[in-house]
Amino acid sequence: MHEKKIAVIGGDKRQKYLADYFSLLGYKTVIFGAKNIPDTASDLTDALSGAYAAVLPFPISPDGVFLNAFCEDCNIRLSFLFSEIDRLSVSRIFGGLVTAPVSAEAEKYGIRIFDYGDVEEVKIKNALCTAEGAVEIALRELPFTLSGSVCCVLGYGRIGRILSLRLRDFGAKVTVFVRRPEIAALVLTDSMNFSYNVPDASVNADLIFNTVPAVLLNEKILPKLKKNCLIIDLASAPGGVDFSEAEKLGINVIWARSLPGKTAPLTAARIIADSVSAELDKS
Amino acid sequence: MHEKKIAVIGGDKRQKYLADYFSLLGYKTVIFGAKNIPDTASDLTDALSGAYAAVLPFPISPDGVFLNAFCEDCNIRLSFLFSEIDRLSVSRIFGGLVTAPVSAEAEKYGIRIFDYGDVEEVKIKNALCTAEGAVEIALRELPFTLSGSVCCVLGYGRIGRILSLRLRDFGAKVTVFVRRPEIAALVLTDSMNFSYNVPDASVNADLIFNTVPAVLLNEKILPKLKKNCLIIDLASAPGGVDFSEAEKLGINVIWARSLPGKTAPLTAARIIADSVSAELDKS
Amino acid sequence: MHEKKIAVIGGDKRQKYLADYFSLLGYKTVIFGAKNIPDTASDLTDALSGAYAAVLPFPISPDGVFLNAFCEDCNIRLSFLFSEIDRLSVSRIFGGLVTAPVSAEAEKYGIRIFDYGDVEEVKIKNALCTAEGAVEIALRELPFTLSGSVCCVLGYGRIGRILSLRLRDFGAKVTVFVRRPEIAALVLTDSMNFSYNVPDASVNADLIFNTVPAVLLNEKILPKLKKNCLIIDLASAPGGVDFSEAEKLGINVIWARSLPGKTAPLTAARIIADSVSAELDKS
Amino acid sequence: MHEKKIAVIGGDKRQKYLADYFSLLGYKTVIFGAKNIPDTASDLTDALSGAYAAVLPFPISPDGVFLNAFCEDCNIRLSFLFSEIDRLSVSRIFGGLVTAPVSAEAEKYGIRIFDYGDVEEVKIKNALCTAEGAVEIALRELPFTLSGSVCCVLGYGRIGRILSLRLRDFGAKVTVFVRRPEIAALVLTDSMNFSYNVPDASVNADLIFNTVPAVLLNEKILPKLKKNCLIIDLASAPGGVDFSEAEKLGINVIWARSLPGKTAPLTAARIIADSVSAELDKS
Repeated sequence: MHEKKIAVIGGDKRQKYLADYFSLLGYKTVIFGAKNIPDTASDLTDALSGAYAAVLPFPISPDGVFLNAFCEDCNIRLSFLFSEIDRLSVSRIFGGLVTAPVSAEAEKYGIRIFDYGDVEEVKIKNALCTAEGAVEIALRELPFTLSGSVCCVLGYGRIGRILSLRLRDFGAKVTVFVRRPEIAALVLTDSMNFSYNVPDASVNADLIFNTVPAVLLNEKILPKLKKNCLIIDLASAPGGVDFSEAEKLGINVIWARSLPGKTAPLTAARIIADSVSAELDKS
Repeated sequence: MHEKKIAVIGGDKRQKYLADYFSLLGYKTVIFGAKNIPDTASDLTDALSGAYAAVLPFPISPDGVFLNAFCEDCNIRLSFLFSEIDRLSVSRIFGGLVTAPVSAEAEKYGIRIFDYGDVEEVKIKNALCTAEGAVEIALRELPFTLSGSVCCVLGYGRIGRILSLRLRDFGAKVTVFVRRPEIAALVLTDSMNFSYNVPDASVNADLIFNTVPAVLLNEKILPKLKKNCLIIDLASAPGGVDFSEAEKLGINVIWARSLPGKTAPLTAARIIADSVSAELDKS
Repeated sequence: MHEKKIAVIGGDKRQKYLADYFSLLGYKTVIFGAKNIPDTASDLTDALSGAYAAVLPFPISPDGVFLNAFCEDCNIRLSFLFSEIDRLSVSRIFGGLVTAPVSAEAEKYGIRIFDYGDVEEVKIKNALCTAEGAVEIALRELPFTLSGSVCCVLGYGRIGRILSLRLRDFGAKVTVFVRRPEIAALVLTDSMNFSYNVPDASVNADLIFNTVPAVLLNEKILPKLKKNCLIIDLASAPGGVDFSEAEKLGINVIWARSLPGKTAPLTAARIIADSVSAELDKS
Repeated sequence: MHEKKIAVIGGDKRQKYLADYFSLLGYKTVIFGAKNIPDTASDLTDALSGAYAAVLPFPISPDGVFLNAFCEDCNIRLSFLFSEIDRLSVSRIFGGLVTAPVSAEAEKYGIRIFDYGDVEEVKIKNALCTAEGAVEIALRELPFTLSGSVCCVLGYGRIGRILSLRLRDFGAKVTVFVRRPEIAALVLTDSMNFSYNVPDASVNADLIFNTVPAVLLNEKILPKLKKNCLIIDLASAPGGVDFSEAEKLGINVIWARSLPGKTAPLTAARIIADSVSAELDKS
């Protein structure tokens, strides 16, 4: 049993799972400012008092000014948060998506935030959650079975690879769009087809998944796609689809973002907890 | 191009897909009495006039008296349907779930109904649809990933086998409950664990799928299950779970019936169309 | 610990593994007449004395007259074997491939032989051994990788199915020849292609596996096969290939028989031991 | 049809496949100095005359002085080879394993050798060949089935990953030894177990594959391994096993080197040809 206290601050219901998991690991935990989750501290100061570590949400702050948190009659400014952290000598700070404004504000108080979203291990595990979420969407939306369907996956990075393998194992005929020959070799090794060319990869597809953060499915390609084709875009902003053109053509596009927290919040929380915990154990 | 006319009668939106698919195969088709689908014949008599074949829905008649059909201000009695089929000399009649009352009524008019739901090929293909639907439910309901989850599948028939394989390929740890050693051997061959014993197979599971039409998950076993365990019952009536006991214990049970038509109506329609079409081609 | 003695009689080195495995299960075991394995009994009578069970080899007797056994200066007639078994009151007799002559001879002494080779469970487990052996041969013989190769499997019974799945998982493009639509449906469900037609299934193949005990690869089809195609015949006598025609055409055919004992003698022995042991436990 | 001539020089029977494959791609090809393959040029000078490109073997020269080639009454010095290449103005030179001495000698004549063995794409494709060869060895050597066996794979690089996946798909229980958490995450994502610790990963294994070029299986670990365990070492020199210690302990170790050329020479040749051809097409 640790004696150490961890303050879980802000965010959504994932934070509850996170706190539960830290408790399982033997930490004393408090929750404050998580959406739709009852606080277990009276205010931010109470939450941080005596805490060895604070775990901020993912993302920490969408606007770089206010914390991504939910409390009655209040908005928590990052400047207040960091000054309290400094004043109360909370040693270790964790958070997701440490943007330049967040980082700059933290540095004013000499605070370094460990970005758990930037850990390769976390990214790989999250990619699996995203892949499962993407399959769930496909199963829900399509009027036919994945088995026997013609699928196109754009990109073969962390998400593209595990998603392609899952689709393959479901009996889909998968073609992966890649740019580089060594990635093409990897696709072949994994017993799927590849194409260096977006149109060739996508025009016969019943289902297209995009994982590349670039508008590959543009006004030139969209009109060539199969009628009734479904596009599931997994890329972060600005996404990989010319959405207005797709709408004009009546193509069904689902822009699925932040899937890990939606499809598997418990697993997503555990991924963060394991990463934070490993980091805490190091020192 | 066939000149033959097929009348698609009653049922739900699957019938629309069915009619479309028959059209693709070159038949002239009419639709009458399908739920939420516009009729293309003015009435039942119009639909059946000149038809070579009639395709009745699945199930043909839940109560053995009225046809499973939807039309304005009317209920179609099986006796009327069959007398019209007889009078208008429709040669071939197809339908799903030809129960004893349905069969008895048809025989009064010398009509034999080909039960496409009783064709082994159809059952196997439907089992795949059911398996995909079951995975969809699991992905939607569970707060954690299937990958790494502990799954129990009760039964290793058509549905149990393909479902288990899909779960295995998703990285779940699957234990299959079987009764006979030759089925156990098949499970081993497919690289999963088996148990001859329901409690052993299920007590550690995060997720239990039942495919056996017998109440295996009864009042003795339910209390031993893991807290937060999810049960997805795929068995036909009366199902495989003591539902009232499960409710008392707060165990989440989903009784998922008729999944093919829900999760993959287009594929489900095509399966029926292929079976009917193969039968039509025989003679 | 059992007090019971099991006499393992005749056969090859599998019998040594068999005896070892029975010892592990707690039986007292003796070996007599196994090829290249030292006897642990002085003669057949010594081996059978006090034995509760005798495990005869697979096959028991190729010619129906002599036991498939190896001992100095002797041939053991079935008639002698069975009279000794009768005289010494050995209760339970097991053996593989109980042919009509063997069975007839045994019945003269009121002996019923449990044929472990005829147990469905044993057949399924042996099919897996055969599939692994077939893959081993393919990997050894082919100058290219299985991954990406075009494979044809004739038949989708116990061996055909597990072999096809293994090839598929290795990244081969597999087409399965089947006769019946319900088996075709099973192949589709398992994410492979099927054909109802031997030539269509085989003419583009780099590698053909036959599992059907009928000469499907006959003088009409052999000339159409791809140059350098390899045929691995897994069928029991008379095999599935017109061997003389294949030789004339210079087609490489490997007739691979009794693979379980060759590729995985320890597993093969264990399969028999488990079956015999389960039977012994029943009574 | 290219008019360009390619001279395939030295090496083994893979070079024949290589020449054949270049012919298929439309090149004019000659072979000289390949082991057990008839020359199609009268001597080295004849082979290189008028050639646009020369493809040297893998490895080019084990000792850094003589070419890895086979011709009657002669040894071809690298210095002679490169001076001829220079004199006859052969534009493009390809070879495998361009060591420092080879490179230094070539530079004297202003020659840059494209090392096809150092291309990531080639390495990935070769890893697949190596994995198939490793499975072949395991199937041949083990007296039990891979299905159900306990396997340990040391390392999860190109070879370790594809090999582990193949073993997993064969129904083996695979534990992968890794050093870094992000690789552990990848193993989990691929539905296998990992360990950060060599003994934990290996002591229960029936079969250990090493892919790490470091002596992980040393005098401390070898005595702890399971009796009858088989080690297949896939690492390049000096290998990953303390061979003398293993011999002392009677542990069966197979050091399997250069598997692609042995198990799949045709595929291995094609991998090189594709790489060389892609390079030739670039300019």
